[in-house]
Amino acid sequence: MKLHGYFRSTAAWRVRIALGLKGLKAEDVFHHLRKGEQTAPAYLALNPQGLLPAFETDEGQVLTQSLAIIEYLDEVYPEPSLLPGDAIQRAKIRAAALVVAADTHPVQNLKILNRVRALGQDDAGVQAWARVTIDEGLDALNSLLEQQSGPFAFGDQPTLADLCLVPQLGNARRFGVDLRWPRLIQIEATCLALPAFQQAAPEQQPDAE
Amino acid sequence: MKLHGYFRSTAAWRVRIALGLKGLKAEDVFHHLRKGEQTAPAYLALNPQGLLPAFETDEGQVLTQSLAIIEYLDEVYPEPSLLPGDAIQRAKIRAAALVVAADTHPVQNLKILNRVRALGQDDAGVQAWARVTIDEGLDALNSLLEQQSGPFAFGDQPTLADLCLVPQLGNARRFGVDLRWPRLIQIEATCLALPAFQQAAPEQQPDAE
Repeated sequence: MKLHGYFRSTAAWRVRIALGLKGLKAEDVFHHLRKGEQTAPAYLALNPQGLLPAFETDEGQVLTQSLAIIEYLDEVYPEPSLLPGDAIQRAKIRAAALVVAADTHPVQNLKILNRVRALGQDDAGVQAWARVTIDEGLDALNSLLEQQSGPFAFGDQPTLADLCLVPQLGNARRFGVDLRWPRLIQIEATCLALPAFQQAAPEQQPDAE
Repeated sequence: MKLHGYFRSTAAWRVRIALGLKGLKAEDVFHHLRKGEQTAPAYLALNPQGLLPAFETDEGQVLTQSLAIIEYLDEVYPEPSLLPGDAIQRAKIRAAALVVAADTHPVQNLKILNRVRALGQDDAGVQAWARVTIDEGLDALNSLLEQQSGPFAFGDQPTLADLCLVPQLGNARRFGVDLRWPRLIQIEATCLALPAFQQAAPEQQPDAE
């Protein structure tokens, strides 16, 4: 298995946590986002969207989109489950994950921040866009997770929701967002006690700068 | 079952198609997006994120996020499957859906277009943002679906990918995007031959203007 990523990509980070929780090892292939390596022809041949991550199975199948990759891993390597519980619980876990992975991160990733800059925004304007987006996303996530009991986002084991929350909090800190949600910080602390979360952190990756 | 939606919300539109394909009826509750009805206190009590759709089960459970709602429906009402095939196929279907539902629509929905306008963009600038975002998203989707055989996005039955494609093409037309992808238009035509897709169209909804 190969994981095409970048130390700071929060989408690749989610997949690294999933692999770790399931005790799987993938060969890392790093593509430097700020140098534009994700748009090199060799990578576009794998993932025409030019986004990270991409995942190659041992059979040579190429999968894209972090949530689709994680659902795949959860189907093929079901223990421990990242979508435990009944259909209602699974829907609530997926919804929490999508608040981050659909409504938040894609609106503040590097590509979109460059598009905001091209509208004439300076550094402060670009950072403000990212901060507003992240603040709104984490506040919505907090509203959902306040309805759940801990210590993780959903009960006593990490789920797809935790895999999305922890990297998004990392992004929030990078952009100076006020972390005004005790429940989210408490979940993060619970997660970071686990080796899979520790080892997936950006600063632990070989390409970290 | 109740579906909280708006005729033009592409996310609600996806869920309407899913319900139709599975032969399910939900009571429609409409919230006028442009009048801001999705931020009324009664709706925020259901969905603190203030986004459409929300789905209420007969047991009073409230689910949010269109993809999470559709995965729920697919688990509880498995026929016809919206995620057919093996784990690889399901991952590819989910990835195609996420190209639309994560990387495209959330970057060009009404909330984000209003944010772009607040940066000083006029109507033309706002429309250009939407067009670039949709063009890029559909082009990425086309790259994925060109690897698949039809007549639907994945083989001979509609899947989660088709449920995301058809509404996004509707949005593309609204914003005047050049529909330069014959494969996507062919898939749409296949879908629109089915009553579930016809009846889910915005202009068929009671709140259509």
